[in-house]
Amino acid sequence: MGMIDITGKKVLLREALASGRIILLPETVKKIGKNQIKKGDPLVVAEIAAMKAAKETYLLIPHCHQIPLNTVELNFSIGENFVEATCLVKAEAMTGVEMEALVGASIALTTIWDMVKYLEKDKDGQYPSTRISDIKVLKKVKKPTPTLDSNPLGHRQSSPRHD
Amino acid sequence: MGMIDITGKKVLLREALASGRIILLPETVKKIGKNQIKKGDPLVVAEIAAMKAAKETYLLIPHCHQIPLNTVELNFSIGENFVEATCLVKAEAMTGVEMEALVGASIALTTIWDMVKYLEKDKDGQYPSTRISDIKVLKKVKKPTPTLDSNPLGHRQSSPRHD
Amino acid sequence: MGMIDITGKKVLLREALASGRIILLPETVKKIGKNQIKKGDPLVVAEIAAMKAAKETYLLIPHCHQIPLNTVELNFSIGENFVEATCLVKAEAMTGVEMEALVGASIALTTIWDMVKYLEKDKDGQYPSTRISDIKVLKKVKKPTPTLDSNPLGHRQSSPRHD
Amino acid sequence: MGMIDITGKKVLLREALASGRIILLPETVKKIGKNQIKKGDPLVVAEIAAMKAAKETYLLIPHCHQIPLNTVELNFSIGENFVEATCLVKAEAMTGVEMEALVGASIALTTIWDMVKYLEKDKDGQYPSTRISDIKVLKKVKKPTPTLDSNPLGHRQSSPRHD
Amino acid sequence: MGMIDITGKKVLLREALASGRIILLPETVKKIGKNQIKKGDPLVVAEIAAMKAAKETYLLIPHCHQIPLNTVELNFSIGENFVEATCLVKAEAMTGVEMEALVGASIALTTIWDMVKYLEKDKDGQYPSTRISDIKVLKKVKKPTPTLDSNPLGHRQSSPRHD
Amino acid sequence: MGMIDITGKKVLLREALASGRIILLPETVKKIGKNQIKKGDPLVVAEIAAMKAAKETYLLIPHCHQIPLNTVELNFSIGENFVEATCLVKAEAMTGVEMEALVGASIALTTIWDMVKYLEKDKDGQYPSTRISDIKVLKKVKKPTPTLDSNPLGHRQSSPRHD
Repeated sequence: MGMIDITGKKVLLREALASGRIILLPETVKKIGKNQIKKGDPLVVAEIAAMKAAKETYLLIPHCHQIPLNTVELNFSIGENFVEATCLVKAEAMTGVEMEALVGASIALTTIWDMVKYLEKDKDGQYPSTRISDIKVLKKVKKPTPTLDSNPLGHRQSSPRHD
Repeated sequence: MGMIDITGKKVLLREALASGRIILLPETVKKIGKNQIKKGDPLVVAEIAAMKAAKETYLLIPHCHQIPLNTVELNFSIGENFVEATCLVKAEAMTGVEMEALVGASIALTTIWDMVKYLEKDKDGQYPSTRISDIKVLKKVKKPTPTLDSNPLGHRQSSPRHD
Repeated sequence: MGMIDITGKKVLLREALASGRIILLPETVKKIGKNQIKKGDPLVVAEIAAMKAAKETYLLIPHCHQIPLNTVELNFSIGENFVEATCLVKAEAMTGVEMEALVGASIALTTIWDMVKYLEKDKDGQYPSTRISDIKVLKKVKKPTPTLDSNPLGHRQSSPRHD
Repeated sequence: MGMIDITGKKVLLREALASGRIILLPETVKKIGKNQIKKGDPLVVAEIAAMKAAKETYLLIPHCHQIPLNTVELNFSIGENFVEATCLVKAEAMTGVEMEALVGASIALTTIWDMVKYLEKDKDGQYPSTRISDIKVLKKVKKPTPTLDSNPLGHRQSSPRHD
Repeated sequence: MGMIDITGKKVLLREALASGRIILLPETVKKIGKNQIKKGDPLVVAEIAAMKAAKETYLLIPHCHQIPLNTVELNFSIGENFVEATCLVKAEAMTGVEMEALVGASIALTTIWDMVKYLEKDKDGQYPSTRISDIKVLKKVKKPTPTLDSNPLGHRQSSPRHD
Repeated sequence: MGMIDITGKKVLLREALASGRIILLPETVKKIGKNQIKKGDPLVVAEIAAMKAAKETYLLIPHCHQIPLNTVELNFSIGENFVEATCLVKAEAMTGVEMEALVGASIALTTIWDMVKYLEKDKDGQYPSTRISDIKVLKKVKKPTPTLDSNPLGHRQSSPRHD
């Protein structure tokens, strides 16, 4: 019982791209596009919530390992009655990062819901049409890691560089 | 800019019920039903992950208030190619708890994905058919709060009870 | 040794307003005003970071109590070579919320630093002029709590309202 | 499945007192008494770690409810070959706080171990005699809550007091 | 003052095995064995709580470093009046992981207490016999790290593998 | 949108030193110097709060990467009407650690405020003179990393050492 032992697995550059959609009222989507949402721009708030959640995936999903992430990148596209979020995660790690990408996409979409809920509720305070759907992993990639590759040269240099 | 000010809103008993589905291979669902998943029972792990996530919604979704929850209850039902999770949340609070229920359902489903990912990946390490879908709020209710109602009587009692 | 015991203190509406400044290069401030910062609008990111930090003050400052906050409100004003942040916090609680307001203001300003650091560093990677300064509590107020006042009426109402 | 529903339970003043011991080498205990531990006073560090852990019990122990604590109080006594920690927790809540007291005592003792581990390890880097033992709940009490009792008077007062 | 500086220490494969016991009523242990505990299987819940706690040891024990863990493995054995938990932790790190193993074992046992507390309380709501005891480090090991060893070969391979 | 991608950046030894001041009443500073503060020694509590905050910078400042820190070192000096804190952070990482040092210094100073607030408040409960000021980065350094340098030799050794 417990987390899978990854000892001995190779450190590789791991990338994962996840996406998902939140179905919204066309009027809500229009207001998002015009930046007329009361509490602020839902896409910016969603981006920030997603970055944090992706970084703490190991505390949210019980069997996930602690993986320092090289990047968490969010992108949004807007349809007539939906917003689509994609979340790209990269890390040089011994195990994959698709759970981090999924958590990022998921929390991004849930955050959008929170930002626009006052527009989506009907007169009885219910959400008859709001949905989060089609959360999936678009792509998972593994490559040799550039950081470790460059380090054998790198750490023989005597003068620190400012990068 | 910032969190909505709920000062002056009534403390009511707030309930919210959210649900969602994860689409899985029929073989995966069968193994879940027979409790044959390598890392343990995905539904139990999902339940525990969801309870924690629901309780820390205020740290995951930026504009959410801190709401001490009376309960977080998870239920799962299994179809031929999916698992459905419902998450019921209750609190005596000045604002609603649907975001807590959505976060609970969402993290429950993402946890199930993590538990069965070794069965869902194809030979190229991709997830061609796994999906999280149809996350929604089934019901949101507000009622007078029984705790505050009973307290005027309650705190005049001189002898503590063990409940 | 330990946290001060607040048992028996009155639940009052507690408000605190804190502020502080980050001194920046005039060029940096201009870019903030024109929304030309690479990683996004620093004021929006700062607002979100501050809301989260204020809500988890009890985990950051060892002797602070857990206080569910009614609001965390951030405001920013821009001078020639600085950005000023104010953070207003309200809660119905047995103890004051000035630490929450100070943590909010502080993390807001530190977040702004992070967002513009690529503009503030000199050619040696140092920060010769960037400073966070003058973090203070502008005002601390205590009042009877409207929520508890309205509840004696409130919870005798039989029909739940949707607010 | 999920957290027990506490809706309708009375808000009472809940207190719990837990204790435990860490068995240490007599030389280690002497150095603690003389404040000669390299990383600082283990009892002070343990106190602070325990306060934080007790406050986040609801994130550490899956079925625990979020309970804002009125106090977390640590006390330590030193024997010839042990340190004993007691952790007192109080809250006005619908459910008991013994888990908070146990988590506080437990993390206090584990923190002491960390602070003195360089003295407890033998030449092979092992801990032949260090033990944490006898963690128990000394007392659990329930009483009418003074805060709610005093509030009916309290919130009719028109002038805020500074306490 | 502060955390010990580990700069320059070797990255080695670090392993630590900790254990501890919770003393319970024989009837409680029997119900655990028959999976008749109201809130679910205490051992499964304890496993999940322990994995999370071990991974966030650096936020619980003040002087601990952030160590990405390769595995956290829990095992339980049941006696007539106790449950024993062992927690194995591995990491490729510059410092040891015994605190992580101790935190894991400790939180596992505390979680079991929470799950069975309704069976352990006497008629006055007290715990006359429940105890957590004998938490110790069974073994601490250091070895050359297989991951770094295999990487010099590994990252010259041009084709990513799916492991 | 999202966190900057650090893939391909060199792992270097990164150091950053930040400092800041809290302006206090001379009487308060005297009491700190004589260790007469009610809740304990503010400098010790500040040190511990700062270590935790620095380690979780990636969860506090949205765009910060997860960087396992080699050390967080706090130092304090006392003037007539102020306490100055410096926070030194080191890590072997692909990006700098000045935000970690700033967060550490900032939370250290805010913690001191909390510890002495009962002495700083005037008769109206206000803080007319307390200020946190002059938080800055004193120095940022990059060097080849000793750990990676020593490992090519290190991991060919067959016998584990106990360090």
